Amino acid sequence: MKLIIQKYGGTSVGSSSRILKVAHRVKKWYQCNYDLVIVTSAMSGETNKLLSLLNEVSTNNKKWPRELDQVLSSGEQIAAGLLATCLNEIGVPSVSYAGWQVPIKTNSAHGKARIDSIDTKKIISELNKKKVVIVTGFQGVDQLGSITTLGRGGSDTSAVALAAALKARECLIYTDVDGVYTTDPRIVQEARRLSKITFEEMLEMSSLGSKILQIRAVEFAGKYKVKTRVLSSLTEFNIPIKEESTSGTLITHEEDKKMENAVISGIAFNRDEAKITITGVPDTPGVAFKILGPIAKANIDVDMIIQNSSNDGTTDFSFTVNRTELNEAIAVLNNSVRPEINASEISSDNQICKVSVVGIGMRSHVGVASQMFEVLSNEGINIKMISTSEIKISVVINDKYMELAVRALHKAFELDQK
Amino acid sequence: MKLIIQKYGGTSVGSSSRILKVAHRVKKWYQCNYDLVIVTSAMSGETNKLLSLLNEVSTNNKKWPRELDQVLSSGEQIAAGLLATCLNEIGVPSVSYAGWQVPIKTNSAHGKARIDSIDTKKIISELNKKKVVIVTGFQGVDQLGSITTLGRGGSDTSAVALAAALKARECLIYTDVDGVYTTDPRIVQEARRLSKITFEEMLEMSSLGSKILQIRAVEFAGKYKVKTRVLSSLTEFNIPIKEESTSGTLITHEEDKKMENAVISGIAFNRDEAKITITGVPDTPGVAFKILGPIAKANIDVDMIIQNSSNDGTTDFSFTVNRTELNEAIAVLNNSVRPEINASEISSDNQICKVSVVGIGMRSHVGVASQMFEVLSNEGINIKMISTSEIKISVVINDKYMELAVRALHKAFELDQK
Repeated sequence: MKLIIQKYGGTSVGSSSRILKVAHRVKKWYQCNYDLVIVTSAMSGETNKLLSLLNEVSTNNKKWPRELDQVLSSGEQIAAGLLATCLNEIGVPSVSYAGWQVPIKTNSAHGKARIDSIDTKKIISELNKKKVVIVTGFQGVDQLGSITTLGRGGSDTSAVALAAALKARECLIYTDVDGVYTTDPRIVQEARRLSKITFEEMLEMSSLGSKILQIRAVEFAGKYKVKTRVLSSLTEFNIPIKEESTSGTLITHEEDKKMENAVISGIAFNRDEAKITITGVPDTPGVAFKILGPIAKANIDVDMIIQNSSNDGTTDFSFTVNRTELNEAIAVLNNSVRPEINASEISSDNQICKVSVVGIGMRSHVGVASQMFEVLSNEGINIKMISTSEIKISVVINDKYMELAVRALHKAFELDQK
Repeated sequence: MKLIIQKYGGTSVGSSSRILKVAHRVKKWYQCNYDLVIVTSAMSGETNKLLSLLNEVSTNNKKWPRELDQVLSSGEQIAAGLLATCLNEIGVPSVSYAGWQVPIKTNSAHGKARIDSIDTKKIISELNKKKVVIVTGFQGVDQLGSITTLGRGGSDTSAVALAAALKARECLIYTDVDGVYTTDPRIVQEARRLSKITFEEMLEMSSLGSKILQIRAVEFAGKYKVKTRVLSSLTEFNIPIKEESTSGTLITHEEDKKMENAVISGIAFNRDEAKITITGVPDTPGVAFKILGPIAKANIDVDMIIQNSSNDGTTDFSFTVNRTELNEAIAVLNNSVRPEINASEISSDNQICKVSVVGIGMRSHVGVASQMFEVLSNEGINIKMISTSEIKISVVINDKYMELAVRALHKAFELDQK
């Protein structure tokens, strides 16, 4: 089976005329005898419209996440049905499936559900009838039969997970950019498109704020070795897909990559986080769990975690959370954590950003960290937190320096040069 | 269990502020210890918005009715989720169910599906948890797991079917009118609200164009003896419901009705139909089936059917269809019927309307028909077709006389007098 998964984002299906364009693109593929499963987001603006309605009837609709998902999931259902109708209209037999109809089974974590399994029987049966199958992105169904959503950008995850389950030849993520860049071209003019990037690098790029592909999509792609290509839905068709195809950015395995011996592949950044510091924490075993247990229980995502070594029997504990969850996190700490651990002070800072250099070449090159710190120092930028992994180094700095830091690092690591 | 089903139409949930009003109404009931299942339509305008989108991507989207239903059904899902969120917000525990989640099982006739069965297990379990259960009207799910819709006004049917399945005490249909009138008050100023009407009368009134309650809802109500009340969502609350309650119109069984000895209960009318006449049809056995078989096969609803007695071995055969299906019906006749039966001519007329007098008292009163024909004759109105049942007489006339006929009949049958 020459099976290709294609995912179209909200902008690509943002109006009936754009849906028609997508349909004609899909038709070209269909005429080349590909089997096709198309994953679609909601029409752009639709999800926000539904959120406004929810905000009008409830000041805190996140408290009823099942209903939130029930409402939000209708957006993709509409887009999928419209696209299937449009394909049928132009002579391509097509059928749409909502997540629960496939079914795409998830756990019950409404708003950030994880896919447990995908039943491919119905889809395969439709493909065998030479139909193009449209599947709603972003959503699934839990064991109770409640609709769940996968979180912002979840349609990417749907697409890659379907590609894995159906053993697709390639998963094409159509978006409004033409690939993954060394950094955001809006900030650094000299940013270059990467023709390939490894899963691991992409994982770091995604989690660090290059919002091209949802991190769980990359995880899935890596785990199940799904060949995933990010490309623009605005450019010309490129059929059939060849190994050597240079459109977009192919996310690939390290061994596949004809490396240009680059140490660093890209610079990622985000200003979505806030930093929380708890000072005067008794330096006893289990204290990290006592702090982060209640945070996890409240379903608040934590990114960086840093604990300084103690001097006087107490320690300082810092971590970052999404800015939108800062107040909730502080409330949890005051209510559930502070009485438990006797901390002297809880402070927070939401004027921060995180800047990271990412590259698989870093593994075998010493000195990347020191070079990074030197560049920042030369620009007079103070570092508030540092966190490292095998293939990335992240620093938290004052967010007013973000652009400056990204440009300086992009130049210093010669990312503007092929 | 003090279980009440309440159905709110699109206007009642047409904006977030109206949804809030419905929520507060429901809360009052909840505080009086009623168990409540609320059936909601889509927000007014939503279904039309979705239809426009469909029309933009396809010139004939009715050809893919599964996708049509997939798209349209999202409207109620949004309204149901919003109402549940709103109720939770004001302190009434609530949960929403789409038709497929209940499940409300239907056949696969997309766009006009019929309910086969309703699984009440989940709803009862939620009611036992003291939750108000919101169910999407208008939709169900077929054996293949495809979403089906019940046709315009199908939310009424959903509500009454749920009331039957759950053995509810009463089914309240909240709408923007305060009950069933002797005829349309916009046409006859003296029209009176009926405090009671029998199922059979209501059936005739519904099918004849009093668009207050979908005909299948009335059928369900009659078959399963569901006490159904049509009332306005704009008036004050009236709790608890009493037998003697006079709000709205109670649709009841004949034996319940303390009749005022009225012969006629109301005048119904519609101008949605068109008339087709086939002349010179050989008057042989089976000819009616040869004509209407292909029409039924094309899923075109036929209303009145009249065959004149033959003289020269041929006969004239007339029937009415919905105006929107006239062209399709003519095409079916020309393609599939005419070659079979050797008819000499097929003609049509869409400048017609149907006016009917309805009343259970008619059974035991002779002379209603002749009185009706006399009234029309006095107004100089020519009758094109006549059709009768036990409790109604319908005539087809030129549609320009519709208002005149309705007013004259309303007066002649003294419907303006209590």
